[in-house]
Amino acid sequence: MSTNRQWIYARKPSGEVGPENFDLREAAMPEPRDGEVLVKTTLLSLDPASRAWMQGATYRSQLNPGDVMAGWGLGEVVSSKASGFSPGDLVSGEFGWQQYAALPARALAKHDKKHKPEHILGALGITGLTAYFGLLDVGKPRPGETVLVSGAAGAVGSIAGQIAKLMGCRTVGTTRGADKCRWIVDELGFDAAVDYQGENLDKALKAACPNGLDVYFDNTGGAVLEAALRRMNVFGRVACCGAISQYNTASPSPGPFGVPGFLVTKRIRMEGFVVMDFYNRRAQAEAALARWLDEGRIKAPVEIVEGFEKMPGALAGMFAGKNRGKLMVRV
Amino acid sequence: MSTNRQWIYARKPSGEVGPENFDLREAAMPEPRDGEVLVKTTLLSLDPASRAWMQGATYRSQLNPGDVMAGWGLGEVVSSKASGFSPGDLVSGEFGWQQYAALPARALAKHDKKHKPEHILGALGITGLTAYFGLLDVGKPRPGETVLVSGAAGAVGSIAGQIAKLMGCRTVGTTRGADKCRWIVDELGFDAAVDYQGENLDKALKAACPNGLDVYFDNTGGAVLEAALRRMNVFGRVACCGAISQYNTASPSPGPFGVPGFLVTKRIRMEGFVVMDFYNRRAQAEAALARWLDEGRIKAPVEIVEGFEKMPGALAGMFAGKNRGKLMVRV
Repeated sequence: MSTNRQWIYARKPSGEVGPENFDLREAAMPEPRDGEVLVKTTLLSLDPASRAWMQGATYRSQLNPGDVMAGWGLGEVVSSKASGFSPGDLVSGEFGWQQYAALPARALAKHDKKHKPEHILGALGITGLTAYFGLLDVGKPRPGETVLVSGAAGAVGSIAGQIAKLMGCRTVGTTRGADKCRWIVDELGFDAAVDYQGENLDKALKAACPNGLDVYFDNTGGAVLEAALRRMNVFGRVACCGAISQYNTASPSPGPFGVPGFLVTKRIRMEGFVVMDFYNRRAQAEAALARWLDEGRIKAPVEIVEGFEKMPGALAGMFAGKNRGKLMVRV
Repeated sequence: MSTNRQWIYARKPSGEVGPENFDLREAAMPEPRDGEVLVKTTLLSLDPASRAWMQGATYRSQLNPGDVMAGWGLGEVVSSKASGFSPGDLVSGEFGWQQYAALPARALAKHDKKHKPEHILGALGITGLTAYFGLLDVGKPRPGETVLVSGAAGAVGSIAGQIAKLMGCRTVGTTRGADKCRWIVDELGFDAAVDYQGENLDKALKAACPNGLDVYFDNTGGAVLEAALRRMNVFGRVACCGAISQYNTASPSPGPFGVPGFLVTKRIRMEGFVVMDFYNRRAQAEAALARWLDEGRIKAPVEIVEGFEKMPGALAGMFAGKNRGKLMVRV
């Protein structure tokens, strides 16, 4: 094969992201330079943050139309001009939405093959590390406390909620629709689920969290954050992981009423975090997650869409709330 | 004297608080019971939080029409049925807006008379402790960092900014109008001042904080908080002390745009606090504040309004931005 298919971020979305924002391009096969590795992509991760990267600068610089769409992937080394990497090695990194990538060795992580590829890219990768550090280091739950996780059926939320259960917390999740509510309770072991599109979010949250909320792991921002702030206990912690409710629009809502008033009144700590800040401790987290996964103490649900050409549609489907657990595309 | 004049919180404000919300009442002189102390009020503190107490439950239960208006005061013991207190002692506590109060001994703090009464009620009291703990324990400034203080000409803000200077930080304050902007720079030693009602708050803040913001001591919420979030550096800290921009209205604004998005992107920590949470360390803070005051390293500007009958007007004037430093009424 001498060409490399790439999804180009072609046009900035004015509202919801969809296939019209991307172009499929055939490019020349990349040539690794000294210190670089040529990787063939096998799995690409779909992440809500992708939409935010298209809108403006975040914890990374803004993507610009014409760029290969950014994203994390798992793949196999085809050829290597870097020490430490050989053909056949299983590696992950920020490949972008393309079938082949030539990347500097320092941008790649090498993995042994005892875990399933989809777990390496999911529960044992960025997804799991985000849940682990966000919940434990930012949320700091204590046994017996009540933890609310929004986006609880999503990739990060599903893991964060299960870790909260392992910590001995009453664990409540928000998601969309009765089916996913049942699923996070029956399949993932949440103590209760709240449909955030249901009739009265405040009332439902109160019923599900009779002792109030001590930790809120926020994947959504918006209305759920606002309702959660009203239920927080004194000295509660909000781990701000993401704000999916605000990404997929050209005009995000103002912050929830109650910030900063509730923060003062209830001495709440709201703290944003990005998983990369904890990278020096990733080995610890990976070991814990791998053990829990191996022992069956957490489940790592994954949905794999087949076919590189489906990337844009899969991203749109994620914002439509279609996936359960980690969504990825097999290239 | 056999009667006790009291200001009663009579009618809930629908918007801005003013004299129409209070009634002056003559009540019987209170009789201390066993374990109680009869205090004659000499100074009453005016605090923005008073308005919030009238609106709903905060870190204390809501005030209800008919209650004696709540507030902190300094006074002299008239008679005592509690051990440890004798006539003539200088004491402070939550006296309420009244000329005499009978209070349990545990609700009173006794002071020696080497400091000025207005400092005991201000820079060495709740006001100074709030600035001290909020800045140092919640904001955690490091030398060389930039600290922004809103409400910088107010009681807490004026002290917080001066402590930030003592810590070796570039210190910027927001206040209203050119006079107060000059005053916080020339008199209090802030490095720069920003008029939050000026034409372009973002631009002014950028000019005053060329290296961004590391700590924001938030007394106001609202537009200043929003602009500050946009200027925060990665790993910045927002110490949420109060939200005076949101108190004096029946319909507070929604939280600033950028919460929680900016918090994630920049890993910002926003933390509400109430000074009472630090009471076990008050001796340490009082000693530091007293030393700085004695050595002339901080100034504690005070405005004293003469006459108990002026309490409601003084409170309204505070929301109109009339005072510089700590506002109190001599009873």
